[in-house]
Order: sequence, then structure tokens, then C-alpha cells
Amino acid sequence: MPAPRDRAHALYLELQDTICSAMAAEDGSAFVETSWDRPGGGGGRSRVLQGGNVFEKAGVNVSKVHGELPDAARAAMRARDLPVHEDPRFFATGISLVLHPHNPHAPTVHANYRYFELGDPQAPTAWWVGGGADLTPSYLYEDDARHFHAAHKAACDDHDPSFYPRFKRWCDDYFLIRHRGERRGVGGIFFDDLCDRPVQDLLAFQRSCGQAFVPAYLPILQRRRAAAYTQDQRRWQQLRRGRYVEFNLVWDRGTVFGLKTDARVESVLMSLPLTARWEVDHQPEPGSEEHRLLTVLREPVDWVST
Amino acid sequence: MPAPRDRAHALYLELQDTICSAMAAEDGSAFVETSWDRPGGGGGRSRVLQGGNVFEKAGVNVSKVHGELPDAARAAMRARDLPVHEDPRFFATGISLVLHPHNPHAPTVHANYRYFELGDPQAPTAWWVGGGADLTPSYLYEDDARHFHAAHKAACDDHDPSFYPRFKRWCDDYFLIRHRGERRGVGGIFFDDLCDRPVQDLLAFQRSCGQAFVPAYLPILQRRRAAAYTQDQRRWQQLRRGRYVEFNLVWDRGTVFGLKTDARVESVLMSLPLTARWEVDHQPEPGSEEHRLLTVLREPVDWVST
Repeated sequence: MPAPRDRAHALYLELQDTICSAMAAEDGSAFVETSWDRPGGGGGRSRVLQGGNVFEKAGVNVSKVHGELPDAARAAMRARDLPVHEDPRFFATGISLVLHPHNPHAPTVHANYRYFELGDPQAPTAWWVGGGADLTPSYLYEDDARHFHAAHKAACDDHDPSFYPRFKRWCDDYFLIRHRGERRGVGGIFFDDLCDRPVQDLLAFQRSCGQAFVPAYLPILQRRRAAAYTQDQRRWQQLRRGRYVEFNLVWDRGTVFGLKTDARVESVLMSLPLTARWEVDHQPEPGSEEHRLLTVLREPVDWVST
Repeated sequence: MPAPRDRAHALYLELQDTICSAMAAEDGSAFVETSWDRPGGGGGRSRVLQGGNVFEKAGVNVSKVHGELPDAARAAMRARDLPVHEDPRFFATGISLVLHPHNPHAPTVHANYRYFELGDPQAPTAWWVGGGADLTPSYLYEDDARHFHAAHKAACDDHDPSFYPRFKRWCDDYFLIRHRGERRGVGGIFFDDLCDRPVQDLLAFQRSCGQAFVPAYLPILQRRRAAAYTQDQRRWQQLRRGRYVEFNLVWDRGTVFGLKTDARVESVLMSLPLTARWEVDHQPEPGSEEHRLLTVLREPVDWVST
């Protein structure tokens, strides 16, 4: 049986293949692959599709890095009550993807699954997994939100009926743009620092979630990708993309941490949209579709019954 | 003689009038003024010009706020070796402006002057001033950089010949986008935590800098505002605006601090461009004008002899 770190990495590479194949087929264009090495140890395989037929910008990145943790990282982990010992060695592997379609009716989607180890590679002093997937529409289609949540709930329920309610709430809490008092999108699932059951069970759980991604997202994309839209709707999408940038650059733990340590900038910022917009004091009209979206971003909704 | 806090605030209001008048006349359209109150005490006067003839987005904000410092703010100040005592009362006033022209050959410009007090309003335990002005071109015109620096050097030299060399270097250090290894622009001056000479002298220094702003920037704007440009040049400008967003949201002390405390979001984010762009792995061709700009952002230049 391969070591957990190798099984995790193999899982993420497999998910990268599955997801990129499905999305490239839907778009009708190919991802461009780049392999990169990290000076401190390890590297990654990035796949990017820019200016496609469906996607304005889509990135699916798998990385596997190891080395010695910077002090800032150790301090951040201690603050999360993780068991950080004196041995500074770490290992991390993960898949991270963000897909931004052109059409303002087709939502942006993000997913990330990761595995982390501290200490001696032969006998780690600690390990944990994290991840999740969340949907960021510019226009609210309740059916889309329900479908995306239901697909991830089914993946969760196969492992533990307590997972979905817990991870759905965690997602709503995590993707809060605090300075706006609104969430980035309509949520999904989010979990971190999980190590309270056998590693093979948690990797199997990640596999279920990762395999749920294409069936959770593709049908939504297919029904929205060719919807008619106005220039005002495109402008609203650009404003929402500005909010996406605000969340990622100000509040996302992984992004801010990556930029403040020595991570590969192009991989860390792959999540940003191709274009974004900021207007001073933009307020959607009460009763408009734009306002209806804001309402659910301010007060999260239970999209599926638990 | 009015108290220093009132003299500082009056100075910033006067600078707001002078600068907005000059820029509105150049643009041929008016700023829209909004007055706002801060729930904890104080308020501000914002002036915004969006979608003008010359400016895509321009904001000039004066604020005067007081109350009790959040713990996070006190901790941040202690880290800067400022004399933070037990009394949590503070007073802050400042002018902050960012002008983003449409034309990719016309540079974005930023300026900010501020005055801060801690403790008893009748007998503050500490006070200091900060500020500066910096120029962010998408295309390098050496004459523009020289002119902008020379105008600010003259303002500095009237007060202390050591100011310009010190504050020019401080500006290059401050506006570094650390994760890119490049500065936001071609610099200018930056200073903070100054309290080592009489407050009236430092306010007079701020007045000189503030009055230098229009003659430093307007001639540059006038010679670039109608320059012919291509769609590729506009795209490069949008990519540089993405970098501007990265600096402000990740590294700018005032912005990050404002978003993480309870400052007025629309004022804090007024500095963001109307639109911005991120492409994965964009690399300007060696020898191109775009590459020439990057060279001076990576290795700051002494634009005027000192």
C-alpha cells in the first residue's frame, strides 16, 4: 500500500485529469499544461484555459511541495491549534481549481482538496486534510444552487451524515467578505484540519467530493452557457468579480499566506478572474435580480434539507 | 491659534478644493460630493468623478475621525514603535486621492497626507504626520517621472534637504509588490510617523507637498491625455491596474487595516481602478515598451540628482 502522501497526490492528479477532460470537451478547447519546480522542494502541474468558447479563464493546478516551514507558517498553524512540533519539515499536496465562464448567467466555481504532513516523512508527527467546493453566481438561479449543494451533500452523506450540515455552515462562514458583510457566493462545502478518523477514510471522502465536482457543476454550466445577456448584466458580473478579487486577496487564508511566503505567484493568483470592476457606491435597485442575489449573500440559505 | 488637529483638517479640506477644481476643469466634468458620518465619531467628505472625459475614475477623500482605537490598531501601532499608552482615544484626519485616467499613456497618481493624535484631545500623549505622492504609469516616459519627482523634491527642499532623498527611498521601499518583486510605479515620496520637529513645521511641509501636487501632475496629464493608443496598450494598462489592486489589497497598510477594522468601505476602496485584468503568466517581450517599464519597477531609478 503506498504511503498516504502518495495516495493523496495520485488522487489529485486523477481528479485533475477527469475535471480538465470534462471541461475541455464542454469548451471545445484545450488546457495548456505547465510543469514547474519549487526551489525549496517539489513542484506542480498547472493547466490553464484562457479565452475559450465557454471559459474566460479556467485553471486547474496540482502541486506537491515539501521542505522546511517558514516561521510565519508555523506561527499561523499554532494559531489554528495544530500540533506544530520542533521538526520544521512539512509536506503538502493539493488540487485547486477555479473556472470563470464568460456568460454572466453561468456561475464561477472553485474547488480545492489538500493533504498536509508535518515532521519526519517516515513517521509524520501530524497530518490533516482540507478542502471543499463553492459556487459563485452573478445571478441567482435557485435550481443551480440546490443542484450543486445536493450533489455535494450526497458525496458527504456516503461518509458521515454529520458532514454536510457541518461543512455547509463552515463554507458560509469561511467565504464571508467581512468588510462587505456578504458571502462570495451561494456556498457549498468547506472543511479543514480534519484528522479525527483514519487517513484512508478521509482520502476516500475527498475522492467522493472530487468525483462529485463534474456532475455538480457541468449541468449548471450547460444550461447557462448560452443564455442571452445584456451589457448591464455583464457589468454586474464584472462588479461581482471585483468582490471575488477582494475576498481572495484580503481574506482567503491560502492566497494571502501564499503571497506572503515564497509560493509560486502564478499558481496562487490563477484564481483571479480575467477582468474585474469597481464602481464607487454601486447599489442595485431594490427588487432587481442583482438585489435578489445580494439578499442570499447576506443571509445564507439552506439549499437542501438535512 | 487653532489646535494642530483643526489646522491639519483645514489644510486637507483646502487641498481637496484646490485639487478637485484643477482636475474637474481639466476633465470638463464635476466631482460628485458625498458627506458621511462615522458611527464611532467623525466623518468625511468624499468627491468622486467616474466616467469623465479624461478620468475613468477619480476620488478625493477627506476624513476626520475620532473615538477609541480597536485593539488590533493599538497592536499594529506598537509594532511600529509608536508611543501607545493606556488611553485608547485617538483622532485622525487626512486627505487621500487616486486619479485613474482613461488613456494608457497617462499615469495613475496617488497622494495622501494625514495627521494622527493619541490620548486626551486637550493634551495628546502622542501625535505624528505621514503622507506622500507617487506616480503609476503603464508606459514609461522618463520626462514625466523626472518632472513629478523634481516638483516634490522642490517642496521637500524648502523644508529640509535631507527629506527628498530619504522620502524618495522610503517610497520605493513602501510601494513594493513583494510577491512580484516589482514596485507599483515610478515612485515619488513617502513618509510616516514623523514627529521629530514642531507640529507647525511638519504641517507647513505637508502644505508644500500638497500644493506641489497639481503642478507636479497636471502637465503630465495634459501631454498624455489625448495620445493615440492601441487595444494592446489598453490591455497592458488593465494588467498594470491588476497589479495596482494587488498592492492595495495585499500590501497597503492603510487599506488592509481599514478593511479589517470598521472603516467606511467605499472610502477605503475608492483607490481601486474602475477595471483591472489578470492573465496567467503574462510576460512582456524583451525590448518592448512594456518590458522597459518593468525594468524600472524592478530596479528603482534616481530621477533627479540630489
